[in-house]
Amino acid sequence: MYPSSTPTSLIDLLQQPGLDFLMEAHNGLSARIVEETGFSGIWASGLSIAASLGVRDCNEASWTQILDVAEFMRDAAPSTPILLDGDSGFGNFNNVRRLVSKLEQRGIDGVCLEDKAFPKRNSFIEGEQLLESPEEFAGKIRAAKDSQDGSSFCVIARLEGFIAGLPKDEVLDRADIYTDAGADAILVHSKRTDASEIFSFLNDWDRDCPIVVVPTTYSDTPAESLEAAGISLAIWANHLMRSSLHAMQETCRLIYRNRSPVESESTIAPLSEVFRLQRMDELKEAESRYGASSQATGQGSEASSRHSAPDPADVILPD
Amino acid sequence: MYPSSTPTSLIDLLQQPGLDFLMEAHNGLSARIVEETGFSGIWASGLSIAASLGVRDCNEASWTQILDVAEFMRDAAPSTPILLDGDSGFGNFNNVRRLVSKLEQRGIDGVCLEDKAFPKRNSFIEGEQLLESPEEFAGKIRAAKDSQDGSSFCVIARLEGFIAGLPKDEVLDRADIYTDAGADAILVHSKRTDASEIFSFLNDWDRDCPIVVVPTTYSDTPAESLEAAGISLAIWANHLMRSSLHAMQETCRLIYRNRSPVESESTIAPLSEVFRLQRMDELKEAESRYGASSQATGQGSEASSRHSAPDPADVILPD
Amino acid sequence: MYPSSTPTSLIDLLQQPGLDFLMEAHNGLSARIVEETGFSGIWASGLSIAASLGVRDCNEASWTQILDVAEFMRDAAPSTPILLDGDSGFGNFNNVRRLVSKLEQRGIDGVCLEDKAFPKRNSFIEGEQLLESPEEFAGKIRAAKDSQDGSSFCVIARLEGFIAGLPKDEVLDRADIYTDAGADAILVHSKRTDASEIFSFLNDWDRDCPIVVVPTTYSDTPAESLEAAGISLAIWANHLMRSSLHAMQETCRLIYRNRSPVESESTIAPLSEVFRLQRMDELKEAESRYGASSQATGQGSEASSRHSAPDPADVILPD
Amino acid sequence: MYPSSTPTSLIDLLQQPGLDFLMEAHNGLSARIVEETGFSGIWASGLSIAASLGVRDCNEASWTQILDVAEFMRDAAPSTPILLDGDSGFGNFNNVRRLVSKLEQRGIDGVCLEDKAFPKRNSFIEGEQLLESPEEFAGKIRAAKDSQDGSSFCVIARLEGFIAGLPKDEVLDRADIYTDAGADAILVHSKRTDASEIFSFLNDWDRDCPIVVVPTTYSDTPAESLEAAGISLAIWANHLMRSSLHAMQETCRLIYRNRSPVESESTIAPLSEVFRLQRMDELKEAESRYGASSQATGQGSEASSRHSAPDPADVILPD
Repeated sequence: MYPSSTPTSLIDLLQQPGLDFLMEAHNGLSARIVEETGFSGIWASGLSIAASLGVRDCNEASWTQILDVAEFMRDAAPSTPILLDGDSGFGNFNNVRRLVSKLEQRGIDGVCLEDKAFPKRNSFIEGEQLLESPEEFAGKIRAAKDSQDGSSFCVIARLEGFIAGLPKDEVLDRADIYTDAGADAILVHSKRTDASEIFSFLNDWDRDCPIVVVPTTYSDTPAESLEAAGISLAIWANHLMRSSLHAMQETCRLIYRNRSPVESESTIAPLSEVFRLQRMDELKEAESRYGASSQATGQGSEASSRHSAPDPADVILPD
Repeated sequence: MYPSSTPTSLIDLLQQPGLDFLMEAHNGLSARIVEETGFSGIWASGLSIAASLGVRDCNEASWTQILDVAEFMRDAAPSTPILLDGDSGFGNFNNVRRLVSKLEQRGIDGVCLEDKAFPKRNSFIEGEQLLESPEEFAGKIRAAKDSQDGSSFCVIARLEGFIAGLPKDEVLDRADIYTDAGADAILVHSKRTDASEIFSFLNDWDRDCPIVVVPTTYSDTPAESLEAAGISLAIWANHLMRSSLHAMQETCRLIYRNRSPVESESTIAPLSEVFRLQRMDELKEAESRYGASSQATGQGSEASSRHSAPDPADVILPD
Repeated sequence: MYPSSTPTSLIDLLQQPGLDFLMEAHNGLSARIVEETGFSGIWASGLSIAASLGVRDCNEASWTQILDVAEFMRDAAPSTPILLDGDSGFGNFNNVRRLVSKLEQRGIDGVCLEDKAFPKRNSFIEGEQLLESPEEFAGKIRAAKDSQDGSSFCVIARLEGFIAGLPKDEVLDRADIYTDAGADAILVHSKRTDASEIFSFLNDWDRDCPIVVVPTTYSDTPAESLEAAGISLAIWANHLMRSSLHAMQETCRLIYRNRSPVESESTIAPLSEVFRLQRMDELKEAESRYGASSQATGQGSEASSRHSAPDPADVILPD
Repeated sequence: MYPSSTPTSLIDLLQQPGLDFLMEAHNGLSARIVEETGFSGIWASGLSIAASLGVRDCNEASWTQILDVAEFMRDAAPSTPILLDGDSGFGNFNNVRRLVSKLEQRGIDGVCLEDKAFPKRNSFIEGEQLLESPEEFAGKIRAAKDSQDGSSFCVIARLEGFIAGLPKDEVLDRADIYTDAGADAILVHSKRTDASEIFSFLNDWDRDCPIVVVPTTYSDTPAESLEAAGISLAIWANHLMRSSLHAMQETCRLIYRNRSPVESESTIAPLSEVFRLQRMDELKEAESRYGASSQATGQGSEASSRHSAPDPADVILPD
């Protein structure tokens, strides 16, 4: 089930020719699904993590709560690069340094930082969008790169300039500054419903620094067009969370109305699939290897309640 | 969208006539969906929480990691009773005391404890199932009830006897002991593919203590039959996690194959629905109430990058 | 050992005549010591918590890590009001709302917020000190007060104006604005080595809002003088952490040099005192009440290793 | 201030000739003090961590809460080996596997596991002490060794047999089994007030596996005697926590009685020492390197409150 070949590192995904895709995940389960499906990498989306936790995407969860989620994702998808959506770095350059150390320690492959102020003002709300000064943000990028211990950790600088309404020249200037600061790639964000803003940026972009995009609003742009424009990486930024939300609403309503799950059965995974994804087989094998009955001794036989399960072939439901 | 009437407490759900249903949730998002759909209560499933975190359902996540998930669920679904699947209490009577205090502090409405040893040996693996002695477990129930501060917290004792292959008499004896110890309800668990074991138990059950069931393997038993048998509460124990798993696998494969999300659009929720569930409207209203631009001052105007978003009507994608 | 009378609430400490003192604590152990000693309240110091965790006092620990420390403190000192040093609120008004809800949920009695930018630039470092605009900060105070659920939670506004070099008039203006916003008290901070700045402020302060001070640099000002000036509460802000640091350095060096702890014995608490503070007696009593041997059953007698401790009177060292 | 030579690894400490000492620490601050003093290693004591958190040493804190403490210790003392007191592994062999992975990930150098049941029954309480069967425990040791990724992580097996009243032969048998299972060292625990039990054990010990002791009750045994007996490592298991407890009690009472800290000044560290241990100099240097004023922009000059601190030479008190 798992890919036998060595996974391509995030840095290689950025630098090799051709377009690759990252798929969003927001917890261990979704990360494992992305890995099994075969995507080259995982986008640990700030919006999706917040939404699944049940909070808003404006730094309501603390940065260590995000880190905990990323750690579960890493454990569940050990063979696939993970890029964390690091918002604006959860503070200043010093917070960025701590973030990078902790991410690298937990085996996360890279972080994407955006040139917005902390806490994030959600882009959904009308009104002014506050950007950090390019010099401040460049300091964060340099701090991030200086903090990494291994050679393979990636720091991606995300331009929020188009979102904030900056003219293209200023956005390009910022991209230059961030590249000089050592960013491993530049993520150009756009909220247009077509890729024109992105393509226009790329037309003027003459640095040897890979470009990443998030085609959420212009998702109907063909992969071929993105590839032809020279984009290295495109991120499907929140699609698994949104599909899970849709499915749970449908299933919940149907079972509520029917007072029965029978009609929903074709759209819910069997328990055996849950167990497979949890790798229960590995645990069973380990139990026999370590000779473990897993319980303490000492109570004496009179209190014992050992029983053989009557029919081992039965699927027993743990919940 | 939200129910205007006062929600019924968990203790009332148990004691009032008629059958009610709890629906499983495993994070803030799923808890909110259960609340919106209208279910009387939420089952914070150990299996589902473990599976969504990406670990196995045998105490791989620490009890405080489970507590953190329950807290996010509480915040996201403030108007619906939550019953936490407390496994075997994560240790002995003293661990149970700490668990109950922390759950009550965070506004969780009750805990279900099972008479198995710690750490759980997952029922899916063949071989012996270890139960705790009924006296030990009764001590946990008494400790749980003595630890609660408010009058409304519920402690439900879950019988794993049928799962472990105990004869019915012993299961009934245990139910008696747990009722005497102060359990607010008895959950009888069965892995049969029909409800016969449950009904047989109920036939002999003559105590005035509500009965809870988890019809996972006998989900085709009509609600009417469960109700007629005198059951107070039935739990759909893992259905939202399983529907989310199924949907994410399908969506992930489709987008991977197509290199495009266009074909998946009908099965993924729009971003506006994500924002609605996150109550972005409340935040927007609060921003105006507290006059907050949310950013620090002090840099002087020359470094300023304030910009009006060019078109406030646009939906801007935060991810 | 514990005070038998009902503790005075934080709000009463602020409003009743006369000067009261809070003593700093930074973990459960120090909080219990403050409670046993008899102080009216506990100051959960940001600097001390950071220092004991091993990080700097500039938001290197996340706000949820601070919250976790406060929760341990609450559990260890259940009868004494705790005021948390909330820095600048860990973000904007919305972060403040979340903080207040979580503090109140965990039984913390109040929070002190300062009108500095996030993340804190430590005052120790020379150069400009950035303050938040008074309007922004007032919005935080209003958001904090609106978020509290119970009537007794206190929100104290801390003026950093003198630290930042503002003239007295501006500091007084800010105090007025924060009082209008609903602050339960005003904390005036000064780094002078005498109380002149504080007394000068008080001379011009004509609002009916209690005043709190932190006499770290002017600690030789007699309590009588502070009381005569009308101050309600004075905070010994970091003294237990600093005494613990001094003692651990001395003890560590002595044992290292001697390769023996014998010479240090008079300055280290006996284990029995550790156990007393941990209330081991309550656990022992509970073990007998809940009849718990605390172990799982089921292994059978052949694997048993039950033994009576040979001499129950011996102090057995758990570490 | 910091040792310039490469620190000796835990495995080298165990295997090289001569006796070395570990000193207990329980948070980042105490870990840094141990490192500065020059000890070869740090004992992350379960008792001390629990006591400083404010809970009991019987698994009241979850294993991830202990892990978080260990991580802060690691960050604060980056150049000194840390051995974590892992109790009985917080469950069964599977919990041990997870623990080892997480410890290694965070840079902890080793774990000590004891052959007691979970949750710990504190040895201080009279009555039976429950041991795990040697086979079960050996499975944990093997699982721990198999789980480690790097070659340098140490797993030490702690014999609780003497504490539980087992005869010497059985304790030796267990030591044999644990050595065969791959333990990197054997810790023999004794509660005698002299080292006779330890020496008697060593007299019969003929395996090539290093021995560790915890001379808490027999602390007056000269280091030379321990060394002559062939012991590799001795642990001062809780002395910094106990010295901190003593000092905080004294200081707290004195300040309370005096309503002034003046008399306590000689026994509390100056703030400058706190800042030195927090390495504020490194932050200051980094601020200049990353050109960071650390604040967001965008408010415009009219709201600005930038001020030069009036006298940069002053020590400003952050608390």
